[in-house]
Amino acid sequence: MTDNGSLGLVETHHVRLFTDDDPLILSGGSALGPVDVAYETYGTLAPGRDNAVFICHALTGDAHAAGFHPGARRPGWWDNLIGPGKPLDTNRFFVICANLLGGCQGTTGPASTDPATGRAYGLDFPLLDMADFVAVHRALLAHLGIERLLIALGGSLGGMQVLEWSLLHPEQIANAAVIAASSRLNAQNIAFSAVARRAIMDDPDFNDGRYAETGLVPRLGLRTARMMAHITYLSEDAFSEKFGRTPHPERDKPGFGIDFAVESYLDHQGRVFIDRFDALSYLYLSRVMDYFDPFSRPNSTDAIEADPVKFLVLSFDTDWRFSTHHSRRIVRHLEHARQPVTFREIPASSGHDSFLLPVARYHQTLRAWFDRTLSEGLR
Amino acid sequence: MTDNGSLGLVETHHVRLFTDDDPLILSGGSALGPVDVAYETYGTLAPGRDNAVFICHALTGDAHAAGFHPGARRPGWWDNLIGPGKPLDTNRFFVICANLLGGCQGTTGPASTDPATGRAYGLDFPLLDMADFVAVHRALLAHLGIERLLIALGGSLGGMQVLEWSLLHPEQIANAAVIAASSRLNAQNIAFSAVARRAIMDDPDFNDGRYAETGLVPRLGLRTARMMAHITYLSEDAFSEKFGRTPHPERDKPGFGIDFAVESYLDHQGRVFIDRFDALSYLYLSRVMDYFDPFSRPNSTDAIEADPVKFLVLSFDTDWRFSTHHSRRIVRHLEHARQPVTFREIPASSGHDSFLLPVARYHQTLRAWFDRTLSEGLR
Repeated sequence: MTDNGSLGLVETHHVRLFTDDDPLILSGGSALGPVDVAYETYGTLAPGRDNAVFICHALTGDAHAAGFHPGARRPGWWDNLIGPGKPLDTNRFFVICANLLGGCQGTTGPASTDPATGRAYGLDFPLLDMADFVAVHRALLAHLGIERLLIALGGSLGGMQVLEWSLLHPEQIANAAVIAASSRLNAQNIAFSAVARRAIMDDPDFNDGRYAETGLVPRLGLRTARMMAHITYLSEDAFSEKFGRTPHPERDKPGFGIDFAVESYLDHQGRVFIDRFDALSYLYLSRVMDYFDPFSRPNSTDAIEADPVKFLVLSFDTDWRFSTHHSRRIVRHLEHARQPVTFREIPASSGHDSFLLPVARYHQTLRAWFDRTLSEGLR
Repeated sequence: MTDNGSLGLVETHHVRLFTDDDPLILSGGSALGPVDVAYETYGTLAPGRDNAVFICHALTGDAHAAGFHPGARRPGWWDNLIGPGKPLDTNRFFVICANLLGGCQGTTGPASTDPATGRAYGLDFPLLDMADFVAVHRALLAHLGIERLLIALGGSLGGMQVLEWSLLHPEQIANAAVIAASSRLNAQNIAFSAVARRAIMDDPDFNDGRYAETGLVPRLGLRTARMMAHITYLSEDAFSEKFGRTPHPERDKPGFGIDFAVESYLDHQGRVFIDRFDALSYLYLSRVMDYFDPFSRPNSTDAIEADPVKFLVLSFDTDWRFSTHHSRRIVRHLEHARQPVTFREIPASSGHDSFLLPVARYHQTLRAWFDRTLSEGLR
């Protein structure tokens, strides 16, 4: 154990949690098996098993939250938060991050092989629900021999999953941090996702979701989807400060190519994305977000009222993807269900993506909250 | 002349303003000819030729601003503003609206025939500049025998053209109304347009702009572009109020189709758009907006300082495409150039598209301003 801040080399583990014979029963009623899960852990589980932290990742995240894979130049996606001496201090916490169901980074998803046909599921993969993400990660916890989490933590879709987990199984979570999330997408949120899906499905290489067979993936549609979504992840001011109207340095002459620096940036974001993400996963996971509306369920807070969870709800003042308005709605529902809730709107210039960035006040808030959970323990 | 508010039947006129032998010299230096222009007029030019109003339309607008075409069920796009007894009262004003250069509604654009090849220009059409729109419309005014406009008026791109016209030829404009416009797109504005163009050019039917020859137009890409742009035309609250999370009534079962009412709306907007608009015009006109930055030109306000124009600058408080911030920048530049400027931020719930809607306070403001221009005349 060190305090130099770097986890160094880490590896992704793979485990089969459900089989064809002993499948996962989805909330929609259908059976899914096998279900494999990719996950990573950092730090050491305490003898009392009372220091476990589960990280739920966002739409396009994965299990690799921190440290370095062999040969990689860039660390995991939340490395600025997780490591020895960092806010989520791996000298003290045992941190777990798993790719979610329907994903494309090692956990079973629409690109996985359907045992019934021997080929990729494609659009035959069942529609998912936030509760299904929770069910799979609960099975992972059982596999790891962890009964109760000290902390469940996530941003954006990850925060939504943390909220769902807390509502369905509050007995399993002592503290829950719900960051830059929403309990109910609004029409504009759904609209952006709808256009992204349209771009993917309109790509002729989408081929009705059967691109695993053709070997041609809908790269152009997925790129457009990502470029558009990326606009919503940054604040208007962040775009202005980063790029302004600066011409792209390699611009030849004006035309319809990459004339402005901001176009080069979006192009780059789109290109790196299509090399790491699956178009069908984008459809499935974004649709789960559209339908998520847990507090509209009858008796949605009965369980948590009987077994309260200590919540931290955070928003960022320049986030227009899931503005503070979304977080305040979550707080209202939780307070109405008599949960202890700490709420902070963090000043941060970058918009929705701030949850991934080492914003000083944000990390200070998290560190203090993490420290408190340790001192209070699993109570 | 009546006061019932309806212009009744109107027709579009067509005129050739530049020829192959006597071409338009574009601001970039190249020659373009022939240039045909589609335009409409409403009301009667006064004997003193002192009641002419020029309407500059927005990105996807056309010359048909008011009244009905034979057999049409819907009137022109600004019919709520223009007609007998309406704020822009055609019993008193002579109103002209023309499709702009590079457009696809009767004025020469990239879908027109290139006399050098006998086929559609496609991407051989020259890049345009805001000043080129002005040059063509000035030629139309000359053709109509009108030396000076009582009012130039436009929203969004139309407002940008009005600004450019005022800066380049203030001697031709007594009053200018610049509505929901910008003198300089920011990085986020450019980003949205870049993704729209990407979607169009990625459509295999775009065929490097040669789709006039194949007969297959890039409908899917253009639809995606329009759907995305349409999200930016409405405020977040307008989407919530109009659609909320209402399911689409014809939804069969959840999937990746049209599950929510907001998805049905966007789909409809996309479909009607591709039947009326040309993909290449979308590229050319949106790029003119990206590059427009008139106040960065040396001595940009010399002409207008010598010959002031009375300005009305309007923004809408929920417009996030071109927020009030954009309008305030225009006001600052104009006031620095010692122009008389009236500025109003209008409360309106619908966002950028408010400029097209009969918002009471907006129309009252315009009516009062129009009335004043008449009483002051061409001074």
